[in-house]
Amino acid sequence: MTARILVVDDNQLNLDLLNARLTMEYYEVLTAMNGAEALDTLERENIDIVLLDVMMPGIDGFEVCQRIKANPATMDIPVVMVTALDQMEDRVRGLQAGADDFLTKPVNEMQLLARVKSLVRLKMLTDELRLRAHTTRDIAIEELLRNQGKAGHEPAEVLLIDERISVFERFSGIMRGAARLHHVNDPKAGVQAAAEGRFDCAIISADFSDFDPLRVISQLRSLDRTRFLPIILSSDIENDTLIARALELGVNDYVVRPVDPNEFVARLKTQVRRKAYHDGLRSNVAESIELAVTDGLTGLHNRRYLDTHLETLVERAHKRGRALSLLITDIDHFKAVNDTHGHDGGDEVLREFARRLRNQVRGMDLVCRYGGEEFVIVMPDTPALMAAEIAERLRFDIADTPFGLGEGCMEIAVTASLGVATLDSDAGETAANLIKKADTALYEAKAGGRNRVVAKAA
Amino acid sequence: MTARILVVDDNQLNLDLLNARLTMEYYEVLTAMNGAEALDTLERENIDIVLLDVMMPGIDGFEVCQRIKANPATMDIPVVMVTALDQMEDRVRGLQAGADDFLTKPVNEMQLLARVKSLVRLKMLTDELRLRAHTTRDIAIEELLRNQGKAGHEPAEVLLIDERISVFERFSGIMRGAARLHHVNDPKAGVQAAAEGRFDCAIISADFSDFDPLRVISQLRSLDRTRFLPIILSSDIENDTLIARALELGVNDYVVRPVDPNEFVARLKTQVRRKAYHDGLRSNVAESIELAVTDGLTGLHNRRYLDTHLETLVERAHKRGRALSLLITDIDHFKAVNDTHGHDGGDEVLREFARRLRNQVRGMDLVCRYGGEEFVIVMPDTPALMAAEIAERLRFDIADTPFGLGEGCMEIAVTASLGVATLDSDAGETAANLIKKADTALYEAKAGGRNRVVAKAA
Repeated sequence: MTARILVVDDNQLNLDLLNARLTMEYYEVLTAMNGAEALDTLERENIDIVLLDVMMPGIDGFEVCQRIKANPATMDIPVVMVTALDQMEDRVRGLQAGADDFLTKPVNEMQLLARVKSLVRLKMLTDELRLRAHTTRDIAIEELLRNQGKAGHEPAEVLLIDERISVFERFSGIMRGAARLHHVNDPKAGVQAAAEGRFDCAIISADFSDFDPLRVISQLRSLDRTRFLPIILSSDIENDTLIARALELGVNDYVVRPVDPNEFVARLKTQVRRKAYHDGLRSNVAESIELAVTDGLTGLHNRRYLDTHLETLVERAHKRGRALSLLITDIDHFKAVNDTHGHDGGDEVLREFARRLRNQVRGMDLVCRYGGEEFVIVMPDTPALMAAEIAERLRFDIADTPFGLGEGCMEIAVTASLGVATLDSDAGETAANLIKKADTALYEAKAGGRNRVVAKAA
Repeated sequence: MTARILVVDDNQLNLDLLNARLTMEYYEVLTAMNGAEALDTLERENIDIVLLDVMMPGIDGFEVCQRIKANPATMDIPVVMVTALDQMEDRVRGLQAGADDFLTKPVNEMQLLARVKSLVRLKMLTDELRLRAHTTRDIAIEELLRNQGKAGHEPAEVLLIDERISVFERFSGIMRGAARLHHVNDPKAGVQAAAEGRFDCAIISADFSDFDPLRVISQLRSLDRTRFLPIILSSDIENDTLIARALELGVNDYVVRPVDPNEFVARLKTQVRRKAYHDGLRSNVAESIELAVTDGLTGLHNRRYLDTHLETLVERAHKRGRALSLLITDIDHFKAVNDTHGHDGGDEVLREFARRLRNQVRGMDLVCRYGGEEFVIVMPDTPALMAAEIAERLRFDIADTPFGLGEGCMEIAVTASLGVATLDSDAGETAANLIKKADTALYEAKAGGRNRVVAKAA
């Protein structure tokens, strides 16, 4: 996969060098010679990754990074800080400023390409998650998806898979206060522990005596439960080939031991933060979708949901030769309830009505608010006779016990009419027709005097 | 990136061979020796890709493929058919059965790995899009997202970037009836055309006289507008290195000319169908999210949206030293409207009220239904005095012209009370406090006799 990369450096030679290397690999490269120019380019262009020199006149790299990460429009763009080899503090400061990674000068070509590749992959996923927001061109929706309300401030749970107790002890010391470290020494047991536990990050040793660390990584990446678990590879030696392959397989970061404690903690925090961010995005999207198929007043599914799902249920019933019944019910004289008890009273009745419906049906039945005071229940594996009985039980349950209003201060009698229809499998009946049939039955129940059930057999 | 691959072949030797090759590349491999076993494994395991032999006793490869694609739980898993080299018809039949790609026996290792890699990438994106559905564990929500109602049956629009008019003519002949072919001979102009047009697929020549085809591909893949455009590389010779690199850069498929017309059309259709599917997923997710922040009755934004966005607007106003005002309005004696004109009448009034609010404010203002008969308007860059004037104009607009009910058969007088508050930037006031202030103002307006504005300056 390719990407648009912005390279920022005040040294023309460095700029040309990085530009040439990246262009050779078919990345699209843009350049900027100082912080102001970089921020300006980011305003105008769609950039996937920023390679950012630290030492620059004017706005330095740290500040550029901070500004990128503070701006909702650019905060998702991975930033790689390029620091001098001996400036350990710069790395920590960079990661604290929100940088996603760093490279040391002179830039090692393999590391450059491996890290860029891994960040491009990350960016692609983020983009996919944010895309729906892009599509709506609505910054507020992006904020909503991004909303981190749920991200706790618990210490991170970290899993170390390493055979040596000495390594565990050293990492324990480093992480004290920043994370809770769990240790498994056997690689296979480690994969299992990762899949069964709830970890925020895994540290995988590159130096098992008798097991390929890349196999551990590939297993973690191919299991559903650990696919998005951040992995840091911890290696005793600078093994470029192994590291490159590990990054390709989906490792998120690597360290060569002995590690600088501050740098390690900063790297760990970057991974944990990123995971929390992605998890938040995912669950916010999921939550939004759930809301979109839920009736806000009653908490039942709404008509949009029913319309989508009914056809599938009908198809499935036909294919498997199973019965399916559908019930439409409408509260009798609901207008009068509203007139007498106001909008709020009406809402209370609707909520209680929904509650009673839900209580009377099985988990596999689908209960929806169809609109206004009309509700639909779809009942798979339910033949005509049984459906009529259920409808009668529902009718009785509603009519028999008055509805409480205003926290029980007042009680009103509510009745409902119900139309039931059963799918005609021989005729290959459609979902639309089934609803029509039930609707006709409901009409007859109303016309027949209300508070009654009319059932149409298949 | 790695993946779980299911290899299906009735020949143990072939099975072992593919297994060994893929395992060496750190894929997790599962095997099945016949169709029934394959379908059984797919039921139980999470599989990312299926490599499927065609010729098998019992259920053959075509049928296995059809069943995979017909089952909602597995339809997103890419299937690669493995066919004998000389069985051109098998390829077309496989693609028609829904296969995503095919390989010919004996399997060329480079092609195998390149194709698997490209399909893994595709699968990752699909999973990310479907994940929210997974999270909800709700098959109906998956169906809703997948719902292809909008996928038209228009002929596909295809862009060919190739210098030679002869190639254009040949492709034109092949695609007649299946797609509309557009031709650009210059590669740079081709990229521009792709970004500006609305194409369903692009065919890129691998044989420009003076331009690197990989550059065309990387440019298309790094532009926002063409990032998801399916690309088929069309090459005059079987150039393995070029093809591998192209697949890595994100080409979706390749053909070596002269192409078999049926095979080509089948491949093209696969790409177009896949794009429509992904586009549909994306827009359905986006639509769902929009619905989740919209008030169903009035079409205004809802309280969830306001709660998310107000804090950002307040923060922004503080940061930029700009004014910000907020208005809460409540329809006077709304209960009486409901009592007299019923639930439907009340709804009509709410809709008309929302319409008038929207008409009186600027595009940058945020109008929300806050709940019941209460509405909120947030007005950036609006100082206290101006906000009070706007509120007064609104009050007048509502009180001055009666509301029509029942398609204009009846008219009723409606008034509203309004509370206005302006952000106190000196005190760094919070969003919650701003709302509270406006709420107090609204309360005073109600207490003061209704149909009036009370404004709290900063």
